[in-house]
Amino acid sequence: MKLVRYGAPGAELPGILDSNGQLRDLSTEVGDIAGEVLLPGSLQRLASLNVDSLPIVAGTPRLGPCVAGTGKFICIGLNYSDHAAETGMQVPPEPIIFMKATSTIVGPNDDVEIPRNAQKTDWEVELGVVIGKPAKYVSEENALEHVAGYCVVNDISERHFQLERQGQWVKGKSHDTFGPVGPWLVTADEVPDPQQLALSLEVNGHTMQNGTTATMVYTVRYLVSYLSQFMTLQPGDIISTGTPPGVGMGQKPQPVYLKAGDTMTLRVQGLGEQRQHVIDARPL
Amino acid sequence: MKLVRYGAPGAELPGILDSNGQLRDLSTEVGDIAGEVLLPGSLQRLASLNVDSLPIVAGTPRLGPCVAGTGKFICIGLNYSDHAAETGMQVPPEPIIFMKATSTIVGPNDDVEIPRNAQKTDWEVELGVVIGKPAKYVSEENALEHVAGYCVVNDISERHFQLERQGQWVKGKSHDTFGPVGPWLVTADEVPDPQQLALSLEVNGHTMQNGTTATMVYTVRYLVSYLSQFMTLQPGDIISTGTPPGVGMGQKPQPVYLKAGDTMTLRVQGLGEQRQHVIDARPL
Repeated sequence: MKLVRYGAPGAELPGILDSNGQLRDLSTEVGDIAGEVLLPGSLQRLASLNVDSLPIVAGTPRLGPCVAGTGKFICIGLNYSDHAAETGMQVPPEPIIFMKATSTIVGPNDDVEIPRNAQKTDWEVELGVVIGKPAKYVSEENALEHVAGYCVVNDISERHFQLERQGQWVKGKSHDTFGPVGPWLVTADEVPDPQQLALSLEVNGHTMQNGTTATMVYTVRYLVSYLSQFMTLQPGDIISTGTPPGVGMGQKPQPVYLKAGDTMTLRVQGLGEQRQHVIDARPL
Repeated sequence: MKLVRYGAPGAELPGILDSNGQLRDLSTEVGDIAGEVLLPGSLQRLASLNVDSLPIVAGTPRLGPCVAGTGKFICIGLNYSDHAAETGMQVPPEPIIFMKATSTIVGPNDDVEIPRNAQKTDWEVELGVVIGKPAKYVSEENALEHVAGYCVVNDISERHFQLERQGQWVKGKSHDTFGPVGPWLVTADEVPDPQQLALSLEVNGHTMQNGTTATMVYTVRYLVSYLSQFMTLQPGDIISTGTPPGVGMGQKPQPVYLKAGDTMTLRVQGLGEQRQHVIDARPL
């Protein structure tokens, strides 16, 4: 299934794509794409619905983040060996975990803000993993049973805030709009191997990132198990699994960063496309 | 006002202490101590209630975390100059920000777990600041207008996970139960100066931490303004403002860490007392 959330920010309704890619209203079946709706039994029930009998959603509404009620937005650092190389850092001997504020989460095509006093705002196309079943001390063998599905994530990063303003990366990862999520939550049954997905990112039509999840250092299965040793993963939590080479800070002969007016286009194989326009930070 | 949440985990009801310290039921007035209930106008309305006419809550129910719907649990590192010294680190030239998972949050007297494979589980009594009004790019001058109130926080930390398992402190800060919050959300009008509060922590009746918020490097006012430059603070977000000297890793002649069977008692002047029993990690 391809689950979506559509409508105005903060008032999104649940939807689902039918076999022709037509958006259908799912609000008679579930309140939202969140929490217990992501549990395996609930997703099984949704999979048994006759999607073509659900009401068609007219027009092309805005898409919100494809999952709601995210308690943790967990990111993995330097999880592609060639990305680690371009940043001049070593592949870590075990996963690097950091957090993005959940207040960063926006829809896949919403505007992305450049923070005030930013110097180095950068992109990162990533495979997002959405947790479906609570996970505490789970084995690698059982880890994927806790995954509801997958989505595209742009882990936008202000490098100056992240790396040059005192420790702890969260400072550069948490500005409003720095976490576009979606367009679709593609349920795990439709992603037979999360380690065989092409992913790419363009800025103003120029391809900057072009990789595959096959070159991840730590796999999705490993990461879910690993994270569950340190914290309990809950339905709706998002794990963003790291980025392939081609971020702005890795460009030659010199880094390239985002500016107002730019457009980013992101794709992960089978998970759809994001497209964001870059603007200057708005007041509240 | 001293606002509380009482009852079984996940099913807490809102309450308030009357002038005699008697717990009264607030559920006829607000759904929970969360979100829009924390806005200044809403707190003003609650302050105008005749608390003594609210129903008395019988007995001594469990207390939950004093605020619900926390989207961000933000901590400040090394914010007391003497604590920085005991850990062998420098006072940072600007605040160090890190996150705790919101899934760590428990009531003030709930059991605290030692994670599996833990080696160095440690305590940190802290002044918690609860946001009441969204804050983005606020000035120091206006910062305290965005604070709903204050509470006690125990920022429990597994130092081995935090410092010896690859970068980014969140890994050692996020185990279930690592964030006791409460007992009370004391509204800001009852805390005339958050920089003049004594705070202390005992383990098994021995005083380990004994300090005052007067020795904070970065004040509450400064921190709210500072954080709002990097992310939007939302009602219910908690800022834990750092810990005074006396953590386990700073003990002489050698560090002292928590073990199952220990009891921690925490106090912040005017904000009440926490008391946690330490146990081994439970399965889900």
